[in-house]
Amino acid sequence: MQVIKYPAREFWSTLLSRPAIDRKSLFEKVGSIVSEVKQNGDKAVKKYTLQFDKVSIEELEVSQEEIEEASLQIPNQLKEAIEMCRRNIWKFHSAQQHDLPEIQTTPGVVCWQKAMPIEKVGLYVPGGTAPLFSTVLMLGVPAQIAECKEIVLCTPPDKEGKIHPAVLYAAKVAGIHRIFKIGGIQAIAAMAYGTETVPKVYKIFGPGNQYVTAAKQLIALDGIAIDLPAGPSEVMVIADESARPCFLAADLLSQAEHSVDTQSILITVSENLVEPVLLEIEEQLNRIPKKEIALKALENGKIIVLQSLEEAVAMANEYAPEHLIISTRYSLGVASNISNAGSVFLGHYTPESAGDYASGTNHTLPTNGYAKAYSGVNLDSFMRKVTFQQISREGLSNLSNAIILMAENEGLYAHSNAVKVRLDKEESEEKPENRLC
Amino acid sequence: MQVIKYPAREFWSTLLSRPAIDRKSLFEKVGSIVSEVKQNGDKAVKKYTLQFDKVSIEELEVSQEEIEEASLQIPNQLKEAIEMCRRNIWKFHSAQQHDLPEIQTTPGVVCWQKAMPIEKVGLYVPGGTAPLFSTVLMLGVPAQIAECKEIVLCTPPDKEGKIHPAVLYAAKVAGIHRIFKIGGIQAIAAMAYGTETVPKVYKIFGPGNQYVTAAKQLIALDGIAIDLPAGPSEVMVIADESARPCFLAADLLSQAEHSVDTQSILITVSENLVEPVLLEIEEQLNRIPKKEIALKALENGKIIVLQSLEEAVAMANEYAPEHLIISTRYSLGVASNISNAGSVFLGHYTPESAGDYASGTNHTLPTNGYAKAYSGVNLDSFMRKVTFQQISREGLSNLSNAIILMAENEGLYAHSNAVKVRLDKEESEEKPENRLC
Repeated sequence: MQVIKYPAREFWSTLLSRPAIDRKSLFEKVGSIVSEVKQNGDKAVKKYTLQFDKVSIEELEVSQEEIEEASLQIPNQLKEAIEMCRRNIWKFHSAQQHDLPEIQTTPGVVCWQKAMPIEKVGLYVPGGTAPLFSTVLMLGVPAQIAECKEIVLCTPPDKEGKIHPAVLYAAKVAGIHRIFKIGGIQAIAAMAYGTETVPKVYKIFGPGNQYVTAAKQLIALDGIAIDLPAGPSEVMVIADESARPCFLAADLLSQAEHSVDTQSILITVSENLVEPVLLEIEEQLNRIPKKEIALKALENGKIIVLQSLEEAVAMANEYAPEHLIISTRYSLGVASNISNAGSVFLGHYTPESAGDYASGTNHTLPTNGYAKAYSGVNLDSFMRKVTFQQISREGLSNLSNAIILMAENEGLYAHSNAVKVRLDKEESEEKPENRLC
Repeated sequence: MQVIKYPAREFWSTLLSRPAIDRKSLFEKVGSIVSEVKQNGDKAVKKYTLQFDKVSIEELEVSQEEIEEASLQIPNQLKEAIEMCRRNIWKFHSAQQHDLPEIQTTPGVVCWQKAMPIEKVGLYVPGGTAPLFSTVLMLGVPAQIAECKEIVLCTPPDKEGKIHPAVLYAAKVAGIHRIFKIGGIQAIAAMAYGTETVPKVYKIFGPGNQYVTAAKQLIALDGIAIDLPAGPSEVMVIADESARPCFLAADLLSQAEHSVDTQSILITVSENLVEPVLLEIEEQLNRIPKKEIALKALENGKIIVLQSLEEAVAMANEYAPEHLIISTRYSLGVASNISNAGSVFLGHYTPESAGDYASGTNHTLPTNGYAKAYSGVNLDSFMRKVTFQQISREGLSNLSNAIILMAENEGLYAHSNAVKVRLDKEESEEKPENRLC
């Protein structure tokens, strides 16, 4: 880890800058695969599954038998763990439902919003080194609460053409309707445009590497919605003298083990923490199998010493971390000044891993500074809000002057005409063929 | 208008298909301008303002004097109209604020959401044939309610390098902080990346032609958020025998006058309406200055006769119109079955133009079928929801089994370690330098 003490404000942005990736060449590579899948459907999907996942898949869809079989392979303890997480995610996300306003803005003019589920959603869960069945819950449970009609999951097969049983089991408990053994770019393209076997969806969710992210951004150009553009995962920890080095080290490491391009940043207002934290990191590194990955990731890691918590908050707001852990004595007070972050963890006993799995909050969060403009995945991510209005003849006449004046000042006389024709005539229940309109 | 009677279900999708635009060549054209603005800032902005708007602008930012001057030029009647619309937009959008959940998902585990304004937002208002000061209100008022810290507006200058006074006045009453005389692609790029004079924003809102939309989609690839991809405006009207031909004709025309590529579709379950509506359109066309535009637009217009309101609703849900007008006797019942639409207008006295200006609902809505996945602009569009969690030592131990099991089954041992280190040790208030951690 790099240690930087009391950096001057003008150096912050350089200090906090994230590694840029060459998007252009990336989009070219990814784009050609996306359009091939769009054109050739399953054929292209299978071709790239063979190429990238090194397995030839006949049946892209996971069968009911495979799903049942999977749940037999999951030990009860793990089932209980999954159930506890599912229940907490359900509790927190179902509480996000709320009444929408029905307002009479003007006498006779009633306007309201109605939340509707997005009918068809596609969830992507990466494979790679670890079976991320927690992500299945994080995406599937809110979709289930929203009552999306068709919930599709794509996740890459292993070399035997199988999906990890825990992923299948989590998908079952999360009420996912169809599961496909498809990963990477080809999975995103398949759900975006549909293939012979994969249904086209309206919105695609889920994390992924830079190729998956690029694919999501490209299909978004065709009007398919995406949850958010994901980048490498990040944690920023703000600590004061009340923090315990072993806790801080553990949190920095739990981010670092994800992948070599993750960022772990510790901001401390107590210089005394620096050495103990570095020692703790060395010590705890030996406890984790992914030591090599973590070591590599920590090369981008930083320990920044600042004068005050005010500065620390300012730096966090400038960086807009995906995860922000506030390991200070008065964490609630510190948190109240945070304006840019994906998810915030307060106090010494709130590790990121709690939110990654079990507390009930979602772990699909905006990285790369996107927290300045994007929310993490939540119930709203699976819904649309449609506006409705019903206006009486009196209501319309109450609005008429405003509409007519504004429309005609915008040069839109057919707009004002639509009001005038309605008010020029008496209300009538006659059938059109019997009346002059 | 094309009249289609009782089309078989399998022909619906062709019947409802929207004109496709060649996005690839569009993105190439637009992309080069975007990157030039990104690189050369104001210099490029001024170059393209001269090229596209045919005017050379020295001062890109509108001065306080120009704003004050503008409000002197607005007749009081129009000011009152603008104020009524502003008030109704404010009423409906401020009612969209709601409490967010604070949930104890497990004893000792408290999770909550906090809504925060997006700090810097950019609003785009097209120029062209009409000064769309109504759009200034539709975007500015919700941003004001959300309390965005920096609200920037870009709108193209006229040949004299001026902005229409009604636009400046609306911007003033909507509490917009800075206004720039920049239009089109160069405006989107300027707000996305910032220039010497235009601040960089985190999210960009507003309608525009296909070039503006393409620019918004391209800057979104760089992680700047956008409200939604906009296409040509659309209206679909569902009518039964209780509808009045002159009202229907007026609504179809008020859409058609926007531009030649807008779509006006009437679905009627009463064949008797067809002839009277066609006659009314001919008659009313003579009342509107934009007759030529409307005529051209109506070439894509359709009158579709269906057997039942159930069919009509099914067709509307498949098309997912930006605006849906339900001109039937029991409009509320029909509306209750609508699942895909941007904004819905119920009954014979609820013309689209009411929602375009004065009722209080937003007129920035998903076109091109995007209503299947996107909401129209609303208060949430200007906010992010950040999750927070605070866990006690007991809370963490209540979650510990689940976290440890799931993390280790995902191969993430540093994640479980972050829980273990916390529970292995006794709580301690000692300073780190005096303790072994």
